[in-house]
Amino acid sequence: MSITIRKLDSTAADFQQTLNTLLAFEAETDDAIETAVANILADVKARGDAAVLEYTNKFDRLPNGGATSMAALDVTQEELQEALNALPESQRAALRTAAERIRVFHERQKQELNGFTYTEPDGTVLGQRVTPLDRVGIYVPGGKAAYPSSVLMNAIPAQVAGVKEIVMVVPTPDGVKNRMVLAAAAIAGVTRVITIGGAQAVGALAYGTATIPPVDKIVGPGNAYVAAAKRRVFGTVGIDMIAGPSEILVLCDGTTDPDWVAMDLFSQAEHDELAQAILLCPDADYIAKVEASIHKLLPTMPRKDTIATSMTDRGALIRVRDMDEACAIANAIAAEHLEISAEEPQQWADKIRHAGAMFLGRFSSESLGDYCCGPNHVLPTSRTARFSSPLGVYDFQKRSSILFVSQAGAQTLGKVAAELAYGEGLQAHARSAELRIESGS
Amino acid sequence: MSITIRKLDSTAADFQQTLNTLLAFEAETDDAIETAVANILADVKARGDAAVLEYTNKFDRLPNGGATSMAALDVTQEELQEALNALPESQRAALRTAAERIRVFHERQKQELNGFTYTEPDGTVLGQRVTPLDRVGIYVPGGKAAYPSSVLMNAIPAQVAGVKEIVMVVPTPDGVKNRMVLAAAAIAGVTRVITIGGAQAVGALAYGTATIPPVDKIVGPGNAYVAAAKRRVFGTVGIDMIAGPSEILVLCDGTTDPDWVAMDLFSQAEHDELAQAILLCPDADYIAKVEASIHKLLPTMPRKDTIATSMTDRGALIRVRDMDEACAIANAIAAEHLEISAEEPQQWADKIRHAGAMFLGRFSSESLGDYCCGPNHVLPTSRTARFSSPLGVYDFQKRSSILFVSQAGAQTLGKVAAELAYGEGLQAHARSAELRIESGS
Repeated sequence: MSITIRKLDSTAADFQQTLNTLLAFEAETDDAIETAVANILADVKARGDAAVLEYTNKFDRLPNGGATSMAALDVTQEELQEALNALPESQRAALRTAAERIRVFHERQKQELNGFTYTEPDGTVLGQRVTPLDRVGIYVPGGKAAYPSSVLMNAIPAQVAGVKEIVMVVPTPDGVKNRMVLAAAAIAGVTRVITIGGAQAVGALAYGTATIPPVDKIVGPGNAYVAAAKRRVFGTVGIDMIAGPSEILVLCDGTTDPDWVAMDLFSQAEHDELAQAILLCPDADYIAKVEASIHKLLPTMPRKDTIATSMTDRGALIRVRDMDEACAIANAIAAEHLEISAEEPQQWADKIRHAGAMFLGRFSSESLGDYCCGPNHVLPTSRTARFSSPLGVYDFQKRSSILFVSQAGAQTLGKVAAELAYGEGLQAHARSAELRIESGS
Repeated sequence: MSITIRKLDSTAADFQQTLNTLLAFEAETDDAIETAVANILADVKARGDAAVLEYTNKFDRLPNGGATSMAALDVTQEELQEALNALPESQRAALRTAAERIRVFHERQKQELNGFTYTEPDGTVLGQRVTPLDRVGIYVPGGKAAYPSSVLMNAIPAQVAGVKEIVMVVPTPDGVKNRMVLAAAAIAGVTRVITIGGAQAVGALAYGTATIPPVDKIVGPGNAYVAAAKRRVFGTVGIDMIAGPSEILVLCDGTTDPDWVAMDLFSQAEHDELAQAILLCPDADYIAKVEASIHKLLPTMPRKDTIATSMTDRGALIRVRDMDEACAIANAIAAEHLEISAEEPQQWADKIRHAGAMFLGRFSSESLGDYCCGPNHVLPTSRTARFSSPLGVYDFQKRSSILFVSQAGAQTLGKVAAELAYGEGLQAHARSAELRIESGS
């Protein structure tokens, strides 16, 4: 297993085009998946629990002939607690530390958004109220890609926001439950866990069934079926963004140990063959050192096959003119994870307009943020950091406008509203405003 | 033209089912529209300006053989200013007053979101940075449904957010420009106006062409083609929510002039035959008075046909047990516009969890909010107020997480991250954290 890593130079005539091709990623729509998902959703909407039970027994190959009732698919709070108690002490402590730090960061987010009101001289009060969602669903993948850190990162912001009911769904292929995932649910304050997955779980959360109340929003990662189902139920419920492959962009001034940078690139590449790891650096000698570290360290990696494919197909080491140019390219890429591994990293961070999360200085490896620094690890991918944000408390709150117009206010505002309403040809709007004026005169 | 208005009673055995049927609204997907839009978008992506020009000449029936260059479709800042100067003084003043009040409200929204950083005892800095989008597109419908108030409500939040480039597209069927819309663009600080519309305008904004730079987000209402195009480009750019028909829900304790309530219901119903206007009131006699007002006032309304259809098909006067029940029903409906037309309205507002905007007290007619109170009139429809918010400054900003881990911080955080990463089978993540630990020892 070896890596043939792409090396680019920003001064090359075709650089921009090569970079665009490298960055291009279009999630393909699979007609077979779309049709299957549409049918499953319609069936769950029509038949409720019976459909959910059938699909779950079939797709998850539940043992002993499968579950005979939805009740059998619920995981009790006692079972969650038992899973937590059964963990090795070091794992339990690490989960608790991570959860506590994630909670602290998200409490800060919550403090930012309190709503406001202000009163005008005529007594009119205007404002904005911030309230939590009532009930949210968290999708957690089962099987190999079951990540307890995802449970913490999705559930804790909802809990901090004040969401009363947090319903987690997690499939258990072949009936196997992931202990660390259940332990994370116990720590994160998940209020209910149901061992269902796939499009049938998304449908149950969106439409509700006799045993599962409908939620207001569904968040969390899933496979192509889950993503297609989330897209389809959007509007009936809110959803988080449909995530693309994960990405890391490292800006390095050439002063960091090349082994560290190589391992940071690996930490993204090991996720997925479609993941993208790119280095921008003005120093050609340093890039050669990182390349040597890559070749040296690859054989030591248990997931070396995935890393090699990802880095060969989608990775790049890019020599840039200087760090200013690196920042300009970083803004165009708008990466999910941006490491600025440099002396005095703040000077470069100040030039960055678009990134999901910025890791400043050589000690801020992305992996620290993935697990336990506190900020969320659910981040905008595929250049969407240009217009979207990390998952946060704000995703589990919504705002309502408050308008309390005084009698005096209705006199002056009514004239303005009526003038514009007549201008737009909406006479009932105008009359509705004018009725309040006449009363005041 | 007459109205047969549905009267419901919350004590009826089938009330909940009748209400659910009344509220149900599913936007239909039209395969012909979907196919046409997919083709137009693909063509604009492939051929750029040439395709935009062809579709614009064809669909908007531009006179004199149509435009021969994209430059001919740009409206200069001088032309916008001329349109403003040409308005009657009363309209110009009303637009300016509305714009100023909208700006004041949205400046308050901006103050709420400043980002934060905090420093931990070991020197690790964590935080969140808030930055504006670079460039946004605002879609403004042409023809009869061209509303200058929409221009103000979409452009001002973007400008307050700090968006540098605000590109407005507005079709001009038969080459006719709407003076009030152009004047609103001048007041709202739109940086560029292009007279294109439909799916071709959405495609041009999303993908960019030789003469139109790609934007980061597209907001604003449009017809079925525009809505379908926005759905399809979502991901490449951000979009606001796809709006359903407009709704008003009036909670009245029976103390407001029934003519006022009738006119408030009309002001929603006149928008659209699919619009929904519902009254909740505990007083049967009062409901009868509102019904009488409706029959009395309908003939005076220029848009009486639309009002009658909307109120007959989708309206209702609902008698409830008491105002507490009215609030519970209002939470289930999660209306776009909620009027609480009552004595001491705050007591009921405190019980409302879900509404796009709340209009408190009998002087707060929805129409005042539609034009000039200050809060945005772009609000979540079709029960989406359960999980989404009015359009606001926050829709034109995004957040980035900041993680600046100190050398000391990397020692403690690294152990936690490595423990969890090994637990998830992600060894490169673990090694990336551990490399920073070894350096510190």
